[in-house]
Amino acid sequence: MEFCATLPLSQLPYVYPSTLSSNKAYPFWSCKRRISSRPTRLHCSKMFVPGFGEASPEAKAAENLHNFFTFVAVKIVAAQLESYNHEAYEELMEFLSRHSLNDGDKFCATMFRESSRHKNLALRIMEVRSAYCKNDFEWDNMKRLAFKMVTESNTRLMTEYVLETSHVETEK
Amino acid sequence: MEFCATLPLSQLPYVYPSTLSSNKAYPFWSCKRRISSRPTRLHCSKMFVPGFGEASPEAKAAENLHNFFTFVAVKIVAAQLESYNHEAYEELMEFLSRHSLNDGDKFCATMFRESSRHKNLALRIMEVRSAYCKNDFEWDNMKRLAFKMVTESNTRLMTEYVLETSHVETEK
Repeated sequence: MEFCATLPLSQLPYVYPSTLSSNKAYPFWSCKRRISSRPTRLHCSKMFVPGFGEASPEAKAAENLHNFFTFVAVKIVAAQLESYNHEAYEELMEFLSRHSLNDGDKFCATMFRESSRHKNLALRIMEVRSAYCKNDFEWDNMKRLAFKMVTESNTRLMTEYVLETSHVETEK
Repeated sequence: MEFCATLPLSQLPYVYPSTLSSNKAYPFWSCKRRISSRPTRLHCSKMFVPGFGEASPEAKAAENLHNFFTFVAVKIVAAQLESYNHEAYEELMEFLSRHSLNDGDKFCATMFRESSRHKNLALRIMEVRSAYCKNDFEWDNMKRLAFKMVTESNTRLMTEYVLETSHVETEK
């Protein structure tokens, strides 16, 4: 069994909201956090991000990370079980084949109610995701990597385009 | 047109790797970062996370945030254009109806090559995603929300289960 290596893509959660609030003509470079009782425009330098309703992009990102941590916790627990409790490992794999990991909380709630052995597995996954989120996950590293990624991607995209077009110009 | 409010779900990127490296029997509670030239076990208190190959969960999370920032940048630019340049807005919507936002970089690269007007749109989206990532996105807020979410979800799941089972016990 190669679960940890091959969690099917269909098991994996989506990143972004499926329903977004209505999109009216919002002011240019307006503030993300508006207070409805104050009609005056807020002096905020942040760009307005439409479509997240009452939530925020940060809340949406946190929600997706929360599902990601459940996914990681399942992988951690499965790897641990495989090495010393193969019966529990098989049970986890069998449960995974029947239930989606798209929604981490729903996955844990269903596992809780499957049997007493599954309940213990679910408790362990919940404990691991909390410990992973609070102690192991390197938040600053993720931020650093995201900064690097956006700078490098933008440079690469522009360089590739310039090289392509100058190549075409040279050939003409 | 309600683009910002209705980016179709199929447009939205996945969170996690579709292919993961093979899953061997790894040591229990071993370290996430292993140095192949040192066969001795590292004294690291972190849980081992299998299945990310040469990458790390932080890199995977950063990659997904990178796609999320492109998605947010498209929404920001669309909202701005809708209020003062409807022609460009319609062009962006039309392009979005034909191209997936699953991979932010691929989306920008394709837009770059569509026409000179699309190239300007792509440059703007790239500029906005960089500015959003580096200046506007509240990283600490996301971390705080994720901490809160994991604690509250675990408590809620256990409370719900206890209430359900004690209710069944009372009925008996």
